[in-house]
Amino acid sequence: MDMYETGLEPGAANHVPLTPLSFLGRSARAFPHKTAVIHGERRISYGLLQERCVRLASALRGAGVGAQETVAVMAPNTPALLEAHYGVAMAGAVLNAINTRLDAATVAFILRHGGAKVLIADRDYCEVVRAALADLDDPPRVIDVVDPLGRDGHGASMAIGREDYEAFLASGDPGFAWEPPVDEWQAIALNYTSGTTGDPKGAVYHHRGAYLNALGNALAFGLPHEAVYLWTLPMFHCSGWTYTWAVTAVGGTHICLRNVEAGRIFGLIREHRVTHMCAAPIVLNMLGHAAERPQDPFDPRVRVATGGAAPPSSLIARMEAMGFDITHLYGLTETYGPNLLCQWQREWNDLPLELRARKMARQGIQTITAEAVTVRDRERDTEVPADGETLGEIAVRGNTVMKGYLKNPEATANALRDGWFRTGDLAVRHEDGYIEVKDRLKDIIISGGENISTLEVEEVLYGHPDVMEAAVVAKPDEKWGETPCAFVTPRPDVEIDADELIRWCRERLAGFKAPRHVVFTELPKTSTGKIQKYVLRQQAAEL
Amino acid sequence: MDMYETGLEPGAANHVPLTPLSFLGRSARAFPHKTAVIHGERRISYGLLQERCVRLASALRGAGVGAQETVAVMAPNTPALLEAHYGVAMAGAVLNAINTRLDAATVAFILRHGGAKVLIADRDYCEVVRAALADLDDPPRVIDVVDPLGRDGHGASMAIGREDYEAFLASGDPGFAWEPPVDEWQAIALNYTSGTTGDPKGAVYHHRGAYLNALGNALAFGLPHEAVYLWTLPMFHCSGWTYTWAVTAVGGTHICLRNVEAGRIFGLIREHRVTHMCAAPIVLNMLGHAAERPQDPFDPRVRVATGGAAPPSSLIARMEAMGFDITHLYGLTETYGPNLLCQWQREWNDLPLELRARKMARQGIQTITAEAVTVRDRERDTEVPADGETLGEIAVRGNTVMKGYLKNPEATANALRDGWFRTGDLAVRHEDGYIEVKDRLKDIIISGGENISTLEVEEVLYGHPDVMEAAVVAKPDEKWGETPCAFVTPRPDVEIDADELIRWCRERLAGFKAPRHVVFTELPKTSTGKIQKYVLRQQAAEL
Repeated sequence: MDMYETGLEPGAANHVPLTPLSFLGRSARAFPHKTAVIHGERRISYGLLQERCVRLASALRGAGVGAQETVAVMAPNTPALLEAHYGVAMAGAVLNAINTRLDAATVAFILRHGGAKVLIADRDYCEVVRAALADLDDPPRVIDVVDPLGRDGHGASMAIGREDYEAFLASGDPGFAWEPPVDEWQAIALNYTSGTTGDPKGAVYHHRGAYLNALGNALAFGLPHEAVYLWTLPMFHCSGWTYTWAVTAVGGTHICLRNVEAGRIFGLIREHRVTHMCAAPIVLNMLGHAAERPQDPFDPRVRVATGGAAPPSSLIARMEAMGFDITHLYGLTETYGPNLLCQWQREWNDLPLELRARKMARQGIQTITAEAVTVRDRERDTEVPADGETLGEIAVRGNTVMKGYLKNPEATANALRDGWFRTGDLAVRHEDGYIEVKDRLKDIIISGGENISTLEVEEVLYGHPDVMEAAVVAKPDEKWGETPCAFVTPRPDVEIDADELIRWCRERLAGFKAPRHVVFTELPKTSTGKIQKYVLRQQAAEL
Repeated sequence: MDMYETGLEPGAANHVPLTPLSFLGRSARAFPHKTAVIHGERRISYGLLQERCVRLASALRGAGVGAQETVAVMAPNTPALLEAHYGVAMAGAVLNAINTRLDAATVAFILRHGGAKVLIADRDYCEVVRAALADLDDPPRVIDVVDPLGRDGHGASMAIGREDYEAFLASGDPGFAWEPPVDEWQAIALNYTSGTTGDPKGAVYHHRGAYLNALGNALAFGLPHEAVYLWTLPMFHCSGWTYTWAVTAVGGTHICLRNVEAGRIFGLIREHRVTHMCAAPIVLNMLGHAAERPQDPFDPRVRVATGGAAPPSSLIARMEAMGFDITHLYGLTETYGPNLLCQWQREWNDLPLELRARKMARQGIQTITAEAVTVRDRERDTEVPADGETLGEIAVRGNTVMKGYLKNPEATANALRDGWFRTGDLAVRHEDGYIEVKDRLKDIIISGGENISTLEVEEVLYGHPDVMEAAVVAKPDEKWGETPCAFVTPRPDVEIDADELIRWCRERLAGFKAPRHVVFTELPKTSTGKIQKYVLRQQAAEL
């Protein structure tokens, strides 16, 4: 042992496991009377939030939940789901927030696979949850969240279990001596991916990753302690991209939101002076095209982070005029949400809209706490050159990568291979190092040895005024190997000609990228709204 | 093993040791062309900063520096010292930044005790360093920092060693494959305390604590990636309160500053649109009373963090009028600098100046990454009540507490006792949980069983228009045990009457707190300017 180790071992005074539970404790000390949560007319201070979470932990223990057992929640963005992000871990248990858009069979699968001992369920989902429970041999104990703001007022006819969440909390001891994790590698959350094929996989988060990703995102998104955060992103989605913990870390205010409705969102932004929110591209689209758009831009302006598809320039312009400033992010369930962000560069401010939109279209550069995010050649497993052309797979390494998939060593080993989490997303690196996603690995088309990004072709199709939805997949071809085949849903009451659409694409894309076939149809989707390309591929093969 | 552990062990993909070296790598990727460092007319981009640090690491290895060996630096706030905060750790070594105000004997002690293999020394300190080296049997290899902005132009007559820092860097390989630490508990820095008695103690920092304290301070201080940080605080002071790493983490710009001069500081703030700086109270005082104060307040306003004594309201008013917004912090060498901050509460904005100053006088509440900072009863070792009166010792627990003191197991065991770092500072907790320092443990006076804070008495003395400096210590007393004795330096060309000063105190303090004796004298100080109260205590005992 050298002199910098001898007698300098870690001890209780200088080594504490990282956990986002610290954030709540700190904010309860720093801001005991400040409003932590707003839900309709309700206000919960940080002092009270801490007390409610401790009660929840105590009540869960009383209900027989043991260390590292699972507590599931099926709820929209309400105080109950936020509290579960702390109270469940304070009981030493693991939170499994379930996607509320899933069907009963999938919910049943998740409850069975995750082994939930307790299910906290909002009565909005009484039908699905009842059906899922009926499917289980050993159903969890059910606690109902009864919320007057819920669907149909959440009357007794919507009951799922026999207990009420508020009564359950009241049964908990506010003086319960909960214990922080002994090891920061301990699990804190279980989030199932919404795979487009096969059973969902349960990504396991640990306390260390939750803590670090929350701090990294607070810095990336510039959350001040005066932050007012509107919950337009589901908390069940990657633990709300860890903003469930990040907003609490800075002592900001969480604004709950049961349903994503443009009018309600605009009203809440105005009423509470919202500063930050996250949202899927579809939500931005809805806001940008809402009939009841506000006349004057919001003051203060609202910073909105979005993942997935790049926002088109027309949408950016609309959003900016309304007072929104967009940040583009990238992440997956396996990476606690955002690990790349399109870090804004000051010199971009002066670019014309179209060029700014091109910059913003990229998913960007790793956040501070994401140790390494890069694009790797699939064969040689080296970083691809920053030429904006060479396609590789996005790979992530660091403390904000999941522990692995629950009870699925094969999928875990396949995902966490040779020191990297392999995302299955194909991308390029631009000259400035910014990463841009081109396609899902399994969706890319290889035609005559050339890669065709289906996203790129779909983007062109979406640009056609008569196209409502579009998906492009590979069709086997004797000569070329594969050729692009487009499945298109036209806007209502509109007819489009396949040849005209192909011409439209040829004018905007290299010839080999334009679809050879166009099929007009409804697109098959999962219960969460993802297009099932594997179904389309089968159809294309049979054409 | 339960299901949340089996097959979910940490691996290279999802567990990476925390280290602030990541911050530089990330900023070099995100902002390769952005200015990272400004020093006079020089500009160093993040890309170049990374290259220079890698070269430094390579050159140090070439000079025979091995893993976990010590590299000392004696330099003002220059690029060389900033680069050492990365390059030394990239070589696997430990940075010992030496206080530039120390005398030769103390520098020699530190070089010997820390076992420095290489010393990078700015020629400003050629006399002290030469004398220190002459004192050593086995002196380190010396690299001179030659800076045209330095004293007397740093000519050859000021040479210390035979090598020049820029040539040394040039000898390093920019492609050197440096390796991040294998363990985040590994040492990254060695910072000696400037104790007022006895030999300095070497606090050892680890990578994990440096990483976390930097992120916590970036959040506490609200550092955006457009931050322009002026180096008014010495980088050798607790690794610059970890802002050496925090500013890099957000991709801000470091503005170097060799000497603290008001005119130069005002000029740099205006020229570079400085947004953030840290400074000791004495520097604030100097700026607030400078002759050449700017006419108009700075735009943007400058956020300035200060530790130590609370800024008096008159100084706050002066600083605010100039465009400075003050944040009060507290920390020690042993805690990587700031662990408490006087977290501002929105409702304080509307308070009159005097009341705001009272709020700001407190050292505050723990930062996000400081796990626990509290005040503990010295006998029962429990938290003191939040009554603003009960005196206890500030105790810190968490990842931002040092590993311990180098080669000093006894002092380490005494400081890190029963799960807390005991700071030796006496304080109270106010009703809102904010901590306020009252005195050093060894300075407090106990008179007739009542505690007297010497800081409180000194504050009243400093309020007298004719007092330039004052220190209060205990004088043994047969009846009361101890009584307060004041040592006072009057302003030049002023005579004060002892009785009048005692009366001044009685009007403003409880009778037993007013000094019984007043001695007019020069105050004895250490080479770093700290008043040596132990000398005064001896004098008081002999009165």
